[in-house]
Amino acid sequence: MKIGVADTTFARVDMFKYVKRALADLGSTDQIVRYTVPGIKDLPVACKKLLDEGCDIVIALGMPGGKRIDKTCAHEASQGLIQLQLITGKHIIEVFVHEDEAKDERELLEIAKDRAYKHAVNAYWLIHDRKMLERYAGKGRRQGKPDVGGLD
Amino acid sequence: MKIGVADTTFARVDMFKYVKRALADLGSTDQIVRYTVPGIKDLPVACKKLLDEGCDIVIALGMPGGKRIDKTCAHEASQGLIQLQLITGKHIIEVFVHEDEAKDERELLEIAKDRAYKHAVNAYWLIHDRKMLERYAGKGRRQGKPDVGGLD
Amino acid sequence: MKIGVADTTFARVDMFKYVKRALADLGSTDQIVRYTVPGIKDLPVACKKLLDEGCDIVIALGMPGGKRIDKTCAHEASQGLIQLQLITGKHIIEVFVHEDEAKDERELLEIAKDRAYKHAVNAYWLIHDRKMLERYAGKGRRQGKPDVGGLD
Amino acid sequence: MKIGVADTTFARVDMFKYVKRALADLGSTDQIVRYTVPGIKDLPVACKKLLDEGCDIVIALGMPGGKRIDKTCAHEASQGLIQLQLITGKHIIEVFVHEDEAKDERELLEIAKDRAYKHAVNAYWLIHDRKMLERYAGKGRRQGKPDVGGLD
Amino acid sequence: MKIGVADTTFARVDMFKYVKRALADLGSTDQIVRYTVPGIKDLPVACKKLLDEGCDIVIALGMPGGKRIDKTCAHEASQGLIQLQLITGKHIIEVFVHEDEAKDERELLEIAKDRAYKHAVNAYWLIHDRKMLERYAGKGRRQGKPDVGGLD
Repeated sequence: MKIGVADTTFARVDMFKYVKRALADLGSTDQIVRYTVPGIKDLPVACKKLLDEGCDIVIALGMPGGKRIDKTCAHEASQGLIQLQLITGKHIIEVFVHEDEAKDERELLEIAKDRAYKHAVNAYWLIHDRKMLERYAGKGRRQGKPDVGGLD
Repeated sequence: MKIGVADTTFARVDMFKYVKRALADLGSTDQIVRYTVPGIKDLPVACKKLLDEGCDIVIALGMPGGKRIDKTCAHEASQGLIQLQLITGKHIIEVFVHEDEAKDERELLEIAKDRAYKHAVNAYWLIHDRKMLERYAGKGRRQGKPDVGGLD
Repeated sequence: MKIGVADTTFARVDMFKYVKRALADLGSTDQIVRYTVPGIKDLPVACKKLLDEGCDIVIALGMPGGKRIDKTCAHEASQGLIQLQLITGKHIIEVFVHEDEAKDERELLEIAKDRAYKHAVNAYWLIHDRKMLERYAGKGRRQGKPDVGGLD
Repeated sequence: MKIGVADTTFARVDMFKYVKRALADLGSTDQIVRYTVPGIKDLPVACKKLLDEGCDIVIALGMPGGKRIDKTCAHEASQGLIQLQLITGKHIIEVFVHEDEAKDERELLEIAKDRAYKHAVNAYWLIHDRKMLERYAGKGRRQGKPDVGGLD
Repeated sequence: MKIGVADTTFARVDMFKYVKRALADLGSTDQIVRYTVPGIKDLPVACKKLLDEGCDIVIALGMPGGKRIDKTCAHEASQGLIQLQLITGKHIIEVFVHEDEAKDERELLEIAKDRAYKHAVNAYWLIHDRKMLERYAGKGRRQGKPDVGGLD
């Protein structure tokens, strides 16, 4: 299979590294194609290009800032990613880390690492064996933070 | 008929159980196809896949958190689900339970159960006999909470 | 002509009655096709089904609640209705009554009646003689409330 | 050329008059086609109909109220107008005057007149000689208010 | 290659100059096609026209005001630009400078210059050698402001 990874020069963490690590840990032999664009709003078309080039899934890595305008940008990008999935019928796993999720840069880095790693695992299973995620349905799984668990 | 159910590992309640129970209570012999994805924003493409695989309707189960970013994610997912319905001409019954709808986890669980159950009933009638809902038009029906009734 | 009416079980007023009354008062002999769905977000696809079944126009009746989440639902539904109109080139007259528009249930009922009635008249003229509305252009016409009039 | 004008009965100013005056002042011999609809959310499909009937450009005249719900309606209409432009590849010049832009009704009327007039001029040049606007690029031009000028 | 530049008469800085300067500094021999429209909401269709005329990429220059309505306009334009990129599969580099980003007009001018210049460079590399941006992935690059750097 062919896994696309779209990322940005705006982000403050090179999350691609953690995607690669996760795939390596899973023993993945999938081809990885990377496409770096300036900012989060450039991700939808980057993902489209990756899907057009034959990727079976794309992981979209972005780090919006903490200001209101950054929230709007992330929202616009997310809408585009969802639209693109509806056009192509392929998953795009969005890995967005918002600067104001963390109390300091150290925590921000940890969130970014964890989220990128765990979502790369999710992406892997979605294309290789989508039934794998079913066992965790309703279990309060989190990426970037610890799982919160299920209520029933 | 074929009923798709898309759900998430992010959710804290396995609402699929209550969908199955409702359909069983109705004596449904419809085929159920389940697809579990990581989070609420992955639901639109999951629903698309289910519809592409021949489902006549899809029930989309999600549990957005109580923070502002979670509200935005739910909004993006909802927009995608509506767009997809316009593309396919098929119903997707959205069953979203927001964490801040309840005062505690126990109530949250009750809302989730009730909403999933009742909307599964709605979905059943929409594909088997859409005129069934007409008798309740304007009657203030609620899912997850008690009905509020009509004003006229 | 064929007029579709989509409405919901969530609404607290059976606005369909006032649509029918308006059309009767106009001496309409148009066929009316009704489709009732659970909630406001199910209206876009319901309208699509009605248009696909040959309706020349659809009246979409909804009553969103007064909470923030209800406003978001109404917004999502409205976006879907506009998209659908752009796809089909046919009018969908949105008749949404927000619970917080009125100070009490009695006023809410009056708004719902008036808005449904007047918009049914608008819908009638849009399909039978669209030039009829031109005489009121810029005249501050309202549905659900009294007209406010023009400024020039 | 053929210029469409879509307007509403909700608006409190008959802005169509100022569009006609502007085109007359320019010596335009373009055909004008008018379409009046109830409210601002009906404008996107009205513009689609006008474009489908052969208009080369459409001017969309609307006057949203000052309440939050009115802002949402205007936003939904604007999104529809942009989508329609992307589908058709033709300009739709949006002339929206918000009730809360002015301190009183007199000022509101002045804004509406000025904006409708100036945007009709813009529309005229966009279809007759699009290079005409280039000389004003970055010059802080305003419609409905005086120009603010460029900074460099 | 052919680079489109769409800009507005609403903007208070003629950012096109800085785009041209950046491309000249890079030794670009690409053809530049410019299209000036009234405001930011006219940019999506302007970009569509430029892409339809054969541009390989478009730079969209806009300067929304600082009021809430301006933010909404910018948001609507951005959504349109993203949709258009998904339709065409081509990049549109959005260069929007918000009036309230700067404490005074002088700083606003500096932001506009810097952002237009740097994004023209980004656009150049995206069409000539997209791998060029990869080396800056996750490095906290900014346009209009100094880079903030990476965290890992």
